Amino acid sequence: MTGRDSPRTSVENAELALLLEVAGTPKPGNVDRHRDHDDLRFEHFLAGAVGARRGLALAADHDHAVGEAFERAVEGMSHQRGGNTQFGALLLLVPLVRAGSDGRALTTEAVEHVVADTTVDDAVAFYRAFEHVDVAVGDPPEGLDALDVRRGGAAERALRERGLTLADVMALSAEVDGVAAEWVRGFERTFEAAEWLLADEGSAPDRAARVFLRLLVDEVDTFVAKTADEARATEATRRARAALDGEEEAEALADEFVERGINPGTTADLTAGALFVALERGLEV
Amino acid sequence: MTGRDSPRTSVENAELALLLEVAGTPKPGNVDRHRDHDDLRFEHFLAGAVGARRGLALAADHDHAVGEAFERAVEGMSHQRGGNTQFGALLLLVPLVRAGSDGRALTTEAVEHVVADTTVDDAVAFYRAFEHVDVAVGDPPEGLDALDVRRGGAAERALRERGLTLADVMALSAEVDGVAAEWVRGFERTFEAAEWLLADEGSAPDRAARVFLRLLVDEVDTFVAKTADEARATEATRRARAALDGEEEAEALADEFVERGINPGTTADLTAGALFVALERGLEV
Repeated sequence: MTGRDSPRTSVENAELALLLEVAGTPKPGNVDRHRDHDDLRFEHFLAGAVGARRGLALAADHDHAVGEAFERAVEGMSHQRGGNTQFGALLLLVPLVRAGSDGRALTTEAVEHVVADTTVDDAVAFYRAFEHVDVAVGDPPEGLDALDVRRGGAAERALRERGLTLADVMALSAEVDGVAAEWVRGFERTFEAAEWLLADEGSAPDRAARVFLRLLVDEVDTFVAKTADEARATEATRRARAALDGEEEAEALADEFVERGINPGTTADLTAGALFVALERGLEV
Repeated sequence: MTGRDSPRTSVENAELALLLEVAGTPKPGNVDRHRDHDDLRFEHFLAGAVGARRGLALAADHDHAVGEAFERAVEGMSHQRGGNTQFGALLLLVPLVRAGSDGRALTTEAVEHVVADTTVDDAVAFYRAFEHVDVAVGDPPEGLDALDVRRGGAAERALRERGLTLADVMALSAEVDGVAAEWVRGFERTFEAAEWLLADEGSAPDRAARVFLRLLVDEVDTFVAKTADEARATEATRRARAALDGEEEAEALADEFVERGINPGTTADLTAGALFVALERGLEV
């Protein structure tokens, strides 16, 4: 008894979560079923999800390390012309798939074990993943230039000298990156949002769009803070609340945010993670 | 040298072909990125494609029979609430994946070999696939009630007594089913449409939408003939020509056909098959 209640394998659910996330509309500022960005379009996310599955399959296979699975997922994702489509989502999905594939129920505790078990090799593989695709990141913390993720595999020596595991690396970014924060906080928001999805009504993509807004209301999107600025990140959260309260049209907000380049990508990543947990727990499609 | 020019495996390209097909819009009468039917929605096609991959993987693995791969693909596809999403597309993709996975170039000749090599066991598995999902089919030819596909695995004895291979079964339906006709004609239209896709410009889903119209202009859709009637099937082809010639708005036609239940599903199947061949030959996404 694994606590799973799905006709699909965990790997299939992880890939489907990526597809349902991008299909959900309106998700203000994101590529969705009805909106593209100029150089990042819907079909890039489709190809990204398909390509990522080879790494997600490794995440479900305990003969392979978590870092290796992640790097392979990102490498597979990168075979399309849109650039970074699902890097952050995969950073949530890989440990979640691992946690749910050991015959135990997919719980906060199970994924905390996966995090705690990560190694320096996993951290090195994580850094290598940045060589496959351009990811928007901030500068590393003061004095940690040797650990700048943009160095890719060249950071290996610095990681080994300091004995940093992938969990340690995530902890270093947790304050400025909402995905890393999940690694530190036991995937708390991911699991909470999964319960919102399960308690909601309507189609899976419609639920995904609503959970995206709720997550954005709940916490400022760190990707907007990085790629735009803090003011627009705060604005995104404020106006998502207005949309949820019916004071703004979510569709108009979606058009405006795409136009202005306000892209709450971390919130989309969390939505994908939540969709995976919900699918594993029986969300029907 | 396999003649392949793709960063993805054949299995990945087959799944991506299913996704790009449903993303292409407008495809008059079909579920597409902008249109749902009442009970058959976009997300059902996403889940269908994800689930089908387990069978597509068997198609690429010569330790498994073509019929088994097909049945498994349909079984995986069926785990969503929309019903039949991609039965016909999979009936094209499975032999195409098999043909392209033996180290040879994916050619008409290679897929003709796959067809010629099918067995009675493959035919039995094909019949069993109908037990996983409701597929719209016409009545069997006069005197062939024992071979009605709606009998599913119960037709096994009739198939074995007559020694019918899957290729034989396809030949029996070739006149009334555009997918079966491809099996008989060396996947001629599929390969031709793949060349149209490669010669076209713009995004892969936009090319898919145009190739759908060209295929529909080219030949009457047998699924419309079955699920509606011959008159509407002829009308669909006539008005697709008008759309291609710019005399009708394809978007308006798409809305009208969905409204009237004119669903050129066989043309969509052929579009998915053509997308696969084009992806294998280097169509970029």
